[in-house]
Amino acid sequence: MQQFKSKIQDPFWSEYIRLVREVVVPYQWEALNDRIPEAEPSHAISNFKIAAGEEQGEFYGMVFQDSDVAKWLEAVAYLLENKSDPMLEQLADEVIDIVAKAQQPDGYLNTYFTLKEPGKRWTNLAECHELYCAGHMIEAGVAYYKATGKRKLLDVVSRFADYIDTVFGNEPDKLSGYDGHQEIELALMKLYHTTGNEKYLNLSTYFLDQRGAEPHFYEQEWEKRGKTYHFGEMNVFDRAYSQAHLPVRDQDSAEGHAVRLVYMCTAMADVAAENGDPRLLDACKKLWNNIVHKRMYITGGIGSMVHGEAFTMDYDLPGDTAYAETCASIGLIFFAQRMLKIAPDSGVADVMERALYNTVVSGMSQDGKKFFYVNPLEVYPTAHGKNRIYDHVKPERQGWFGCACCPPNIARLLASLGEYVYTIKDNTVYTQLYIGGELKLDLDGKSVQLEQESTYVTDGKVSFRVHTDEVVSFTLALRMPDWCDRVEAVIDGEKVEFTHGDEDGYIRLNRDWQAGEQVLLHFSMPILRMKGHPGVRQVFGKVALQRGPFVYCLEEADNGTGLYQLRLPVQSHCEVIPDDSLREGLNVILATGERCAPNQAEGWSNHLYRSDSQWHKENTTLKFIPYFTWANRGLGEMSVWVEES
Amino acid sequence: MQQFKSKIQDPFWSEYIRLVREVVVPYQWEALNDRIPEAEPSHAISNFKIAAGEEQGEFYGMVFQDSDVAKWLEAVAYLLENKSDPMLEQLADEVIDIVAKAQQPDGYLNTYFTLKEPGKRWTNLAECHELYCAGHMIEAGVAYYKATGKRKLLDVVSRFADYIDTVFGNEPDKLSGYDGHQEIELALMKLYHTTGNEKYLNLSTYFLDQRGAEPHFYEQEWEKRGKTYHFGEMNVFDRAYSQAHLPVRDQDSAEGHAVRLVYMCTAMADVAAENGDPRLLDACKKLWNNIVHKRMYITGGIGSMVHGEAFTMDYDLPGDTAYAETCASIGLIFFAQRMLKIAPDSGVADVMERALYNTVVSGMSQDGKKFFYVNPLEVYPTAHGKNRIYDHVKPERQGWFGCACCPPNIARLLASLGEYVYTIKDNTVYTQLYIGGELKLDLDGKSVQLEQESTYVTDGKVSFRVHTDEVVSFTLALRMPDWCDRVEAVIDGEKVEFTHGDEDGYIRLNRDWQAGEQVLLHFSMPILRMKGHPGVRQVFGKVALQRGPFVYCLEEADNGTGLYQLRLPVQSHCEVIPDDSLREGLNVILATGERCAPNQAEGWSNHLYRSDSQWHKENTTLKFIPYFTWANRGLGEMSVWVEES
Repeated sequence: MQQFKSKIQDPFWSEYIRLVREVVVPYQWEALNDRIPEAEPSHAISNFKIAAGEEQGEFYGMVFQDSDVAKWLEAVAYLLENKSDPMLEQLADEVIDIVAKAQQPDGYLNTYFTLKEPGKRWTNLAECHELYCAGHMIEAGVAYYKATGKRKLLDVVSRFADYIDTVFGNEPDKLSGYDGHQEIELALMKLYHTTGNEKYLNLSTYFLDQRGAEPHFYEQEWEKRGKTYHFGEMNVFDRAYSQAHLPVRDQDSAEGHAVRLVYMCTAMADVAAENGDPRLLDACKKLWNNIVHKRMYITGGIGSMVHGEAFTMDYDLPGDTAYAETCASIGLIFFAQRMLKIAPDSGVADVMERALYNTVVSGMSQDGKKFFYVNPLEVYPTAHGKNRIYDHVKPERQGWFGCACCPPNIARLLASLGEYVYTIKDNTVYTQLYIGGELKLDLDGKSVQLEQESTYVTDGKVSFRVHTDEVVSFTLALRMPDWCDRVEAVIDGEKVEFTHGDEDGYIRLNRDWQAGEQVLLHFSMPILRMKGHPGVRQVFGKVALQRGPFVYCLEEADNGTGLYQLRLPVQSHCEVIPDDSLREGLNVILATGERCAPNQAEGWSNHLYRSDSQWHKENTTLKFIPYFTWANRGLGEMSVWVEES
Repeated sequence: MQQFKSKIQDPFWSEYIRLVREVVVPYQWEALNDRIPEAEPSHAISNFKIAAGEEQGEFYGMVFQDSDVAKWLEAVAYLLENKSDPMLEQLADEVIDIVAKAQQPDGYLNTYFTLKEPGKRWTNLAECHELYCAGHMIEAGVAYYKATGKRKLLDVVSRFADYIDTVFGNEPDKLSGYDGHQEIELALMKLYHTTGNEKYLNLSTYFLDQRGAEPHFYEQEWEKRGKTYHFGEMNVFDRAYSQAHLPVRDQDSAEGHAVRLVYMCTAMADVAAENGDPRLLDACKKLWNNIVHKRMYITGGIGSMVHGEAFTMDYDLPGDTAYAETCASIGLIFFAQRMLKIAPDSGVADVMERALYNTVVSGMSQDGKKFFYVNPLEVYPTAHGKNRIYDHVKPERQGWFGCACCPPNIARLLASLGEYVYTIKDNTVYTQLYIGGELKLDLDGKSVQLEQESTYVTDGKVSFRVHTDEVVSFTLALRMPDWCDRVEAVIDGEKVEFTHGDEDGYIRLNRDWQAGEQVLLHFSMPILRMKGHPGVRQVFGKVALQRGPFVYCLEEADNGTGLYQLRLPVQSHCEVIPDDSLREGLNVILATGERCAPNQAEGWSNHLYRSDSQWHKENTTLKFIPYFTWANRGLGEMSVWVEES
């Protein structure tokens, strides 16, 4: 695989990365050490210290509490990769020392089973997330090694992976199991790519191959351990919940827990790319297509219900009871990135962009201190706490959660965002995202630096400049976004206009690039009136506005209460207005619209239903803001979709 | 209170009563005796036999299993009151003998606590339904005595009530408690009215007065019994769930479990009428108004969510996740009847009619063998079993339930329907429902028989004939239904037209009635386009059709799949067509309508979202059927509300 270094320097994204560095990671450190009085205790660092023999005490927290430390270390690694920070690195080194001491002589590493249930290792894979925690620590070890060159954690996780390899397999003396929550599979692929040790590739492949095999492992282990549950029946018997209902190559629809599915798909794509396994790649494509053609919110959110945090069925996308977990969209981005590495496809990158610019950034408040776990598309806060179908949906971002998966996941994605901007294949640089920064790589046997500058989110303008010591021949492939019908380009001083890309959706500039040569791009950003597939009953007859990568929404703060009474006429005049109040460089959309209301004279006060009520439409101006900026101005209604009139 | 006898003989309702007699009650008998292989075991009769010492064995079933036997006996009583049936009566006598033998020497009667938890009587009122079961047996005892003149069960329940009276009260040696599920209160009022014993009035008043008092009884008993739960926390700590969050006189909004609320309100109205308690009556009115002005489905269903089978808040009426339990609408009818006894008010009777002709009869299939517990207003069956927010909603009626509250409740309401047709006050006969049958009572000191004939549901025609031996002076008050704007009447051969009633909504005919004198009524039955209050976001922009007492709905069987794609234009031409296929004497409505669809050429197959999609409207004929007849033609979509265009 082509290696490259990609750093972010972007007016929109650098601020998020700054927040991760200055707010999220420090806050998370305090949380992991139980120094945030208002947050639920974490105890995650203490668990490791106790397991390391450095502290007295008992395990506390979720069975997967270790993964919070791993995700923190991974985010730290990405930050260090981008910018040296000796104090942060020292802190991480100290944590790694403790983690290393907590590792058992045989390589095993998990504080829950070491402290709380010694002797019960690997007895409840369906529920107890041992391999999931292992996967996160492996990802941290790989990232930390890449960032710092320090091998300590990499060696720890390699030893752990070596030990895992001795435990699992189809040999009679091994466990033919696999984790309830996929993660180890993609982590082992990272470990393989970093160490080159094929054992890890084979182990990852084994876990994927084994999933869904008969007789069913979750039931076998459940019988064996005396039919006990850690969380409950669903984890063991609802096979689709963990995508263990079928062998992975036979799965063609997105079922069960959304995060698990996309983590699994990420590993499937990794393994398919490595092994050249056409059936596995075919399953990846089928699952990808099922998600993005039938089971994804317009915001790139996935998971239509709280029960099992799961997919439901094709075209079932309720906005108000949505789950659309931040972590699931992050996983969708992982999956997209792997698919793009296999084959460039602008449609795949479009989905990556949709998830990133909408659900993922919606997941964090503008100050980096509060988070959405669930990302609804419609909220009527007065109904929350009253109608309990909304219990999982918070109308305002929350502080740290007891099950703190989303904030550290956002942190590690944003801190490593450079990895998602480009893919390189066959002497071609594919620009998947228009995010400013610096790409360094070797092309045509020469060292090249590609500098991207972007005010894409504001005005659709992007420039690329090639830095090289000598003429270098390569193709710069530019994704033609699905929302764009025209790009004005200036290449080496010459104006060109593109209305579409090649079959795979990229505009290819194949040149002998001179030092300093520049490409200027201006993407037209029409306001799009988006509609849903006619099978999506929840949005039928409605429209959502999109401009550039952003899906827009209506908020009570701008439009008053009763958003469901608003209508956007087919002939509405829509205008883009710069508005820095929510965040610098953003635009809002003002649209001529209508508010439906019964005639005042009707006097509805004591009527719940009546006949021959006359309704009229008052002209009003609707103000749409980018979806990700919602819920930053106090409690209020929000809706992405608005009825068309 | 004025006594009267009212029997049903009606082309619409007699068939239901026949079903109760020939199908429901016999089936229920088999179920209570565990002779229905496909139904969950009941064991209810066995529980009594074991407690009576006539059988060996253990208690089985819900903690409130006894109430199924009580409700069966009550329904049997009403059937016997209307038509002699020696074999049925013998069966009931035998059951009563067993119940009597199961009564403990001190008067206590409950098989769960007698068999399964002896010594634990009255330790968990919040959850264990002892007084609820007592109430149902009291209702049965009263009804059986009235129907047959036999005192045995009446004596049993009187002894039980006497014993309860020694247990509960504010004296230091008594328990200052009250039941989690209201029912005893209204039952004691029936016992009081039948026996004249004021002890029962006082005990009922006591239970109402005590509810919501501090310190909180449910928490006290929970502490006392060692903090255990029978069902779970909600029953003990969610005070509003059992309407125990405030003293009843301070409650002004309908909160918590819908059935409990309306059963409580029924007793409150009974006690207010008896004691002339203005604050209690005022609370009844506030609660009634809150329900019917802000928290009731157009079908007369109540309870907007499955969690707690409960109310949510004002104007929150989701159609697809509705609870709208059949029993709750039956309880609403009880409450309405009591309010009408206090003061005639056509609006109250309108609600009674709405609940009866829509939700209640929807609760039972046309063959009397299957039942709805939950009555949704919108169903997309493909989403059921997939999106778990619909788990409580069944798209088809079910056989007997484990918690078999609804079928026997339908049976006892229909078998006693005569009691709801009229109220008598101040020498005035108020016709609350236009249901054919015979009313016998004394008026003006003379014996009168009023014969109603009705084809109301078919063509709006009703006639009354007075049978008397001598001229009798009284007022016949005729409810002007809220859906009717004109009644053509022929009174003693003379044509009169009414467009409204008096202030309370009744047309009063005050005459010296001759024997054989007749009143013919022809209610105009326009097709009404009903709209919901603008605060009900779930139905905003939609209409429902109503004609006469029936709310109509669209079904897939008539209109194809994708009901959400249909539109009813403001100028739609609607036509009433007789259609006996669902049930004799019914009408369907054919309306010119539209089906929205994207243009064929767009090719949506691989798009989930797209911009600039053009939609067109195809003309189509929409067929609406009475709501209660839905789900009798196989699995399919259903919707009461349709988008207006």
